[in-house]
Amino acid sequence: MKNDIYSTYRLQAPPQLNEIKTTVVCPATEKHIKKYQRQESFLVEETGADYQSITLPYIQKQSFSVQWVYNILEKKAEADRIVFEDPDPTVGFLLLPDFKWDQKQVDDLYLIAITLQRGIRSLRDLTQEHLPLLQTIFQKGKEAILQRYQLPASKLRVYLHYQPSYYHLHVHFTKLGYEAPGCGVERAHLLADVIQNLQSDPEYYKTRTLYFPLRVDDGLLSKYKEAGRL
Amino acid sequence: MKNDIYSTYRLQAPPQLNEIKTTVVCPATEKHIKKYQRQESFLVEETGADYQSITLPYIQKQSFSVQWVYNILEKKAEADRIVFEDPDPTVGFLLLPDFKWDQKQVDDLYLIAITLQRGIRSLRDLTQEHLPLLQTIFQKGKEAILQRYQLPASKLRVYLHYQPSYYHLHVHFTKLGYEAPGCGVERAHLLADVIQNLQSDPEYYKTRTLYFPLRVDDGLLSKYKEAGRL
Repeated sequence: MKNDIYSTYRLQAPPQLNEIKTTVVCPATEKHIKKYQRQESFLVEETGADYQSITLPYIQKQSFSVQWVYNILEKKAEADRIVFEDPDPTVGFLLLPDFKWDQKQVDDLYLIAITLQRGIRSLRDLTQEHLPLLQTIFQKGKEAILQRYQLPASKLRVYLHYQPSYYHLHVHFTKLGYEAPGCGVERAHLLADVIQNLQSDPEYYKTRTLYFPLRVDDGLLSKYKEAGRL
Repeated sequence: MKNDIYSTYRLQAPPQLNEIKTTVVCPATEKHIKKYQRQESFLVEETGADYQSITLPYIQKQSFSVQWVYNILEKKAEADRIVFEDPDPTVGFLLLPDFKWDQKQVDDLYLIAITLQRGIRSLRDLTQEHLPLLQTIFQKGKEAILQRYQLPASKLRVYLHYQPSYYHLHVHFTKLGYEAPGCGVERAHLLADVIQNLQSDPEYYKTRTLYFPLRVDDGLLSKYKEAGRL
């Protein structure tokens, strides 16, 4: 049966505990197959120099298209899904529900704040000059979620991914207690921590060694292997 | 049926996706009931001053017993479970499998490194003087896991919890890809980041505002509510 591929099954039997976990996804697309097939990941250690010599050239060469993000920012797509908007060209952003969230209940609330400012690829591009932008997203994002969904800041996990899925700065807002994919410490960076780190060291994300998982089929992993870094 | 209490059930039906998740724990103790009942959590913001005026007095007053940890360190308990030992009184530690891990497969590998040095309660107590200790745990812990389980460092997530479950310094080693409970960004701190942060700022964990989730039945949460901080 086709769907068997997408069900994961785990059986643990420690002395006094039997635990069964299952996930069934039906129907499933090719993307789901890829997501749910056991894909091995490796933790990569990226120094500031590695970013310049390995990661950045890879990102630039791939020229991952973020045209779909620009379509959202220009209201050519998903305009009806916008939950909140700050139109300021420097510190402004759009807040939208993530596609993983069906918006039927706040238990798995998941929204994304996308900066209007273009050209900020990721955490690595952030310096002290972006503090007003980050603080605006943090404050106004939390306020908008309180107003729209009656969910206070104390119920939210607000973070960035590194590496991100796409190289246009965006921030994740998920409900605390909901184990959102990618909220693990190996990939997520609390926005509150990012702000504090930049306040105390403007070069924090330029100079720090950052750690992140890459799947075996990720082209960037090959680059790290070629460089003898794995 | 008693066990119904411990099964969690979640049904999501976004437009093209049906996902069913179940967890069955059988038989279950009172502790399991507490763990699996939907317990609401709140994210607490703790400044360095809050730690001194709210958290530390609470920890000291509760005088949470870590006698069971001392029993392990003194080989009065679990001596047969020790995977690796560095006996140095300053930088030494014991490495043991966590009780959540049945040790039957490395897919959900979970080990704990417990420092021999007593009196280091948590992240908040760490300063530059603890760097040799942290580096020893990081290096020797990874080496021991490679030797014993053939799992290289690139497959490991190594982190501390804040707040920890008990106030005697310990470090978690889990397999990358295994969604271990408590590995979310809101509670876990990568040991590699902790080391870097202390290297660049000896007072990092004394002065930083730290964020962590507390369950509604946690006495510390009441203290933060009483202080008007929630």
